[in-house]
Amino acid sequence: MQAEIISIGTELTTGAKLDTNSQWLSLELAEIGISVIAHTTIADDLDEMVATLRTAAERSEIVLITGGLGPTLDDLTREAMAKFGNVPLVQHEPSLEHVKAMFAKRNRPMPERNLIQAMFPEGSEPLPNPRGTAPGIWMPYQRQDGEISHVAAMPGVPSEMKQMFRQQVLPRLDGSGQVIRRARINLFGVGESQAEEILGDLTARGRDPDVGITVHEATITLRITAMASSVDECRAKIEKTRETILNRMGTLVFGVEDEELEHALVRLLRLRRASLSTAESGTGGLLAHRLTGVAGFETCYMGGVVVPTNTAKRELVSVDPMLIRQYGAISQEVALAIAKGCRQRFGTNFALAVTEWPEFDPDDPLGQVPASFVALAGPNVAKVEKVQHFGDPAIAKSRTAKVAMNLLRLQLIEG
Amino acid sequence: MQAEIISIGTELTTGAKLDTNSQWLSLELAEIGISVIAHTTIADDLDEMVATLRTAAERSEIVLITGGLGPTLDDLTREAMAKFGNVPLVQHEPSLEHVKAMFAKRNRPMPERNLIQAMFPEGSEPLPNPRGTAPGIWMPYQRQDGEISHVAAMPGVPSEMKQMFRQQVLPRLDGSGQVIRRARINLFGVGESQAEEILGDLTARGRDPDVGITVHEATITLRITAMASSVDECRAKIEKTRETILNRMGTLVFGVEDEELEHALVRLLRLRRASLSTAESGTGGLLAHRLTGVAGFETCYMGGVVVPTNTAKRELVSVDPMLIRQYGAISQEVALAIAKGCRQRFGTNFALAVTEWPEFDPDDPLGQVPASFVALAGPNVAKVEKVQHFGDPAIAKSRTAKVAMNLLRLQLIEG
Repeated sequence: MQAEIISIGTELTTGAKLDTNSQWLSLELAEIGISVIAHTTIADDLDEMVATLRTAAERSEIVLITGGLGPTLDDLTREAMAKFGNVPLVQHEPSLEHVKAMFAKRNRPMPERNLIQAMFPEGSEPLPNPRGTAPGIWMPYQRQDGEISHVAAMPGVPSEMKQMFRQQVLPRLDGSGQVIRRARINLFGVGESQAEEILGDLTARGRDPDVGITVHEATITLRITAMASSVDECRAKIEKTRETILNRMGTLVFGVEDEELEHALVRLLRLRRASLSTAESGTGGLLAHRLTGVAGFETCYMGGVVVPTNTAKRELVSVDPMLIRQYGAISQEVALAIAKGCRQRFGTNFALAVTEWPEFDPDDPLGQVPASFVALAGPNVAKVEKVQHFGDPAIAKSRTAKVAMNLLRLQLIEG
Repeated sequence: MQAEIISIGTELTTGAKLDTNSQWLSLELAEIGISVIAHTTIADDLDEMVATLRTAAERSEIVLITGGLGPTLDDLTREAMAKFGNVPLVQHEPSLEHVKAMFAKRNRPMPERNLIQAMFPEGSEPLPNPRGTAPGIWMPYQRQDGEISHVAAMPGVPSEMKQMFRQQVLPRLDGSGQVIRRARINLFGVGESQAEEILGDLTARGRDPDVGITVHEATITLRITAMASSVDECRAKIEKTRETILNRMGTLVFGVEDEELEHALVRLLRLRRASLSTAESGTGGLLAHRLTGVAGFETCYMGGVVVPTNTAKRELVSVDPMLIRQYGAISQEVALAIAKGCRQRFGTNFALAVTEWPEFDPDDPLGQVPASFVALAGPNVAKVEKVQHFGDPAIAKSRTAKVAMNLLRLQLIEG
């Protein structure tokens, strides 16, 4: 069984927007052993859409479309599917109710144009969209060779598309015999080439299961991919590789799958029944934002301050201006003073602090590598770490926030 | 004149890699007035490649291919072009020298397989690749209708592809004589369909210049695209449409191009020589993070607090716990008290506050729409706005931070 994916939208063919839906859908289909032979992106043009649909449905059993289901005049997926299937568009009462309800819920009048979102090609099935006004479409297609292909049209908005795919489309697909399973292990505290050295033979080409390395904002992710005839077999293969990796990597590993350092940190804090507060200068609230993004953070994260100015540092975390004058705002001493003042202000077990850092140009080969300091204050502990900002300044904030969280993570594990 | 773009590679159709080349090339072609009608991504499959090439070259004058020029067995672009053009592959002596020289420079022996990189379809022209071993291919194609199309094959590695496109392919393309210029106008405070209603005839299909609408986390962007025979003419057209839009949209417009609400707000604060502080619960530091991301924020943004707990609200922004007990943490009264307490704590002209909001499941059609409050305190001003969280919870924080910033923006303009 093979599939292909069609993305609709002039904003895509002109380059105004990047299509990420096709990649995501390809990965999802691979999970159930359906291989994708092509992605096609076309403009909002009815004839082109019908021709592309025909080519796709004639050669592939599954055709997934994203985009073109909105209420505006250039949203033509509905019309294209009707023309391609040679059937009229008919109104679907429950969908009309849904669209009306969505507008009622938002207390807004429903524009006339939105009526079109309750129209479907005759013989097709509407796919509910709990997150938006545009329902999807599931439609069978009789091929020249007598076989039946299926076309699913979904919204272009990634969050709506993903939910509709998982809830409505996936259950309608039969996969192939082979299954693929993936697992991810996340590390912090080493560089990519160092990680590769430690892993050694594990990353060799052709190894089964395959182990790949990617880096995102200083977090290293190891991706294990196993293919086998059953899910259990995949899992067993992955488990063995995972154990080897954990043995070699030790406390560099902080989590799996989508887990970020903040999830690991909140988990550890809750386990230790410890509380945390933060005081940030250079990261400007990012640390607080990351921590408050974790479900259940309220039980251990008590709050934070963003203190870019000396006045704010004095008023909110009691840092003596003389100390800043003596050592400079970017110093070990000031980092520790901020952490201690923050801990006292919030009355928490631990506090993390981040100083500011100088502006820098990564393309200046003679420029000094700028640095900032992160500090941890706690019962019987006061630690500072220097963070050097080489590389992309765009990730300096994220990397610094991670160094701070990792400092406390290691303290909670080892300290 | 129209073009299309073909990306080759099983790593793309499986979703292992994201194709960003097609978007980049579309934007480049648009600059010289060549419109792109389709992007196609196909696996490393010879027959599929030949069929796709034929369809593309029969309908479009320019076909750009990326990928499949490497030395390995699954790199088939060369063979596919020969088969498609119905010509043999012949060796090109200077290209062979180039490949050999690349290996000599890197002190590595040249694998036998790399010989293929000096083979070209008869009648085609090699395109030098100073950055890699794979030269590109420029090939004319005689269509069924007697016209000539041109196919350019380039490496898939973005840095090599971009250089080859600019140095070798672009000079071979005759633009339409037409140039395209774009402009973006950003709005906040209306929904997409409401914006479309206000714009009326401006978004009609076929209008010149074209006006499109996109939404990202509740910010609406209007994209004006003008085509004309000169850049000046484009600019004049855009200017006229821009004026019409500004007239109709008024203070809904906050910026242009990449400007976000935080840029508009920092600009206005500096202009008015006013200072700001923030106190956040539900947005957990996002407001502070956005504001400190704007260059020059230090002159007007004095800092913030993240106060998720009642204790933090009392200790840091002096909110009476009785008030919270009386009205609830999510109330107008508490929002205002937080804003006033924050303003006093930091001694700023203005303060923005955000309350928390209840957890919600956007997929529960009967679930009450949860809400939070944002408040503004300033000299002679105290305003509160209720924010309802329908739709994707992933954007609730971003949207709420924007509502808060917009509240102050409007105050600074109108107040």
